[in-house]
Amino acid sequence: MKSDLVARLARLIVEVGANVQPGQVVGITADPEAAPLVRALAEESYRRGAKYVDVWYFDGHVKRSRLEHAPDETLDYVPPWHAQRLFALGDARGARIALHPVVPPGLLDGVDATRAGKDVLPSLKEGFEVINAGSTNWCVAPNPSVDWATIVYPELGPAQALERLWQDLVHVLRLDEADPVEAWRERFGALADAAARVTAHRFDALHFEGPGTDLTVGLLPSSIFEGGLHETAWGLPFGPNLPTEEIASAPDPQRVDGVVTATKPLDVGGSVVRGLRVRFEGGRAVEIEADENADAVRARCARDEGASRLGEVALVDREGRIGPLGTVFFNTLLDENAASHIAFGNAYESCVESPEDVARVNRSAIHMDFMIGSNEVSVTGVTGSGERVPVLRDGTWQV
Amino acid sequence: MKSDLVARLARLIVEVGANVQPGQVVGITADPEAAPLVRALAEESYRRGAKYVDVWYFDGHVKRSRLEHAPDETLDYVPPWHAQRLFALGDARGARIALHPVVPPGLLDGVDATRAGKDVLPSLKEGFEVINAGSTNWCVAPNPSVDWATIVYPELGPAQALERLWQDLVHVLRLDEADPVEAWRERFGALADAAARVTAHRFDALHFEGPGTDLTVGLLPSSIFEGGLHETAWGLPFGPNLPTEEIASAPDPQRVDGVVTATKPLDVGGSVVRGLRVRFEGGRAVEIEADENADAVRARCARDEGASRLGEVALVDREGRIGPLGTVFFNTLLDENAASHIAFGNAYESCVESPEDVARVNRSAIHMDFMIGSNEVSVTGVTGSGERVPVLRDGTWQV
Repeated sequence: MKSDLVARLARLIVEVGANVQPGQVVGITADPEAAPLVRALAEESYRRGAKYVDVWYFDGHVKRSRLEHAPDETLDYVPPWHAQRLFALGDARGARIALHPVVPPGLLDGVDATRAGKDVLPSLKEGFEVINAGSTNWCVAPNPSVDWATIVYPELGPAQALERLWQDLVHVLRLDEADPVEAWRERFGALADAAARVTAHRFDALHFEGPGTDLTVGLLPSSIFEGGLHETAWGLPFGPNLPTEEIASAPDPQRVDGVVTATKPLDVGGSVVRGLRVRFEGGRAVEIEADENADAVRARCARDEGASRLGEVALVDREGRIGPLGTVFFNTLLDENAASHIAFGNAYESCVESPEDVARVNRSAIHMDFMIGSNEVSVTGVTGSGERVPVLRDGTWQV
Repeated sequence: MKSDLVARLARLIVEVGANVQPGQVVGITADPEAAPLVRALAEESYRRGAKYVDVWYFDGHVKRSRLEHAPDETLDYVPPWHAQRLFALGDARGARIALHPVVPPGLLDGVDATRAGKDVLPSLKEGFEVINAGSTNWCVAPNPSVDWATIVYPELGPAQALERLWQDLVHVLRLDEADPVEAWRERFGALADAAARVTAHRFDALHFEGPGTDLTVGLLPSSIFEGGLHETAWGLPFGPNLPTEEIASAPDPQRVDGVVTATKPLDVGGSVVRGLRVRFEGGRAVEIEADENADAVRARCARDEGASRLGEVALVDREGRIGPLGTVFFNTLLDENAASHIAFGNAYESCVESPEDVARVNRSAIHMDFMIGSNEVSVTGVTGSGERVPVLRDGTWQV
């Protein structure tokens, strides 16, 4: 790994993503194997005047031991101090950075999926509360690792695979631009514009049509699309995902109907799910099938009432840098930005405007994105009066 | 590193040291570089029925960034969730394991010692409360690392140095015995016997005499010596240190007088202190000198009122396995068991019997051992009537 690249990635995450401010406490969550990037993030944060950088290295190998040995009825136990840390970060108007993947993809292969579905750590349900309260500036960004790289490029040796993954990330993170900070400001602006244009139509639903997909996703009356920068409750802008190419909203959790076929594999807490197909009725996923590891999805969707309903619908056009690569990264942070997607589980309150709709958006302890878009999948907006307005055709904005 | 050895060391720590019980939550503190041993500890704990294993990987490199950049007045800040975790482990009657060194020795070389003295993390002052409450079964044990090994054996290459350090640890941890568990039960018994014999004299003070040392350490009326196994408040035995060769008590923090010269270098949070010499008056360290890094000791001793007074006096005979090696490990866990020692800072309440003495033992946010014993240092007990009783001569028990 090139230490110069690590330092540049760290600077991008701290400055453009989390936007760490002088005096802030910074909480980082990462795989212990991400230590070089974590240390660069800490160095950069302290240089910018951070008060304290607190790292939670979450060890997927320890999680695997738990899933192999611990009694069934204990698998949803979460020690209270992790939520206390989150809320304390919020109370202090802290910054948060997470490096993905935390659990190396494939590490949990062979583990009983029903048991694995009960343990969603290092995800914390309280994370949604802190996000919805806008009490922290935060960023999720990738950490390239050999474990990850060899799953993306199994035909290459470990060192070559890592080198190749770094090349991809440099490109999609716009670190190959003369001024990556400026490149991101421009892209954030374009995403905000697209979000405003789609929002302006006040669609009642979105209709996805393509191979194996005929799905209608209802929207709430005050659903809005968000893209690019977010703001904390006190007005500090931050980029919650790096990279980001999506505009996203909160669907009506009662009005999702039809069938959908995932257009990419997805990693569910270390298990790779391939060929996912889901049928929805009245908002609920009533059939979940897959070529591999369907149980991992079923177990997550069984976690609570909201886990089998949608909390997010997001649109991605072909102008982003991830989709054109055609690479499956087995990492939601990247893959969700390659293609339009939906997510089971918790919604983001900032995606609706009225208090009534805040009360109606989906709630769950989980949030699991999966990719349903491609250039072959058309997206059509349906208005309250039934008018159909093309939104995406061949991956290109029509609005 | 031999994975078989790692597994055997893990089993010893979990079974003989922390004595992890079914249903317990286990908190581990370790350097991220200790991940292989941490994972083995987790596997072993879960096999024994642990409910959850929570790892706090503390990253010394992140600490170094803090000490280089963060404002002076923030350096004693400790995020509240670490103490919450400790107390929650105590409330749940949890187990705790710490692998030393957490901060690799030498990592903080060159950092301003006065600043370094303000940040004692990953030590937490609340740790003493949890220990005194007897609410957790716990164990501090060594993790051999290349960083550490190359400081102990600078003349060897990294791989050879690590191999050599492993050999030492296998020996001093009695992993070369046919039945290490039984070997430790025997040694714990011998230490408990020695502690009982010294306690029975009810000495008023101990007098240390040797090259550069003429120090009298007053004891409290109900001071007792402890060695070998400890017990939680609910009666679970555990071995708090592996290895252990010491018997220890709590001195009178007001009655320590004379001069003392350290017989080994010591590592103070990553800075190696050599040639330490201290003069005490009325219990307080009034002069602190050293050939290297005296400021690291001075800064720690300036932390609070109790930091310049003694919280522990411990005796080690030559029968232990560490002293005869003659090796300086630059690690208190090992070096303190090679030689009699004293510690600045907080005392252990279990070392006194009366409530009056519990109120009198030393209190501080720090606990810093340093070695003052050798075969050339004699230890004499002084009774209330002034009688002098030989305790250690040439490293051999006289009582």
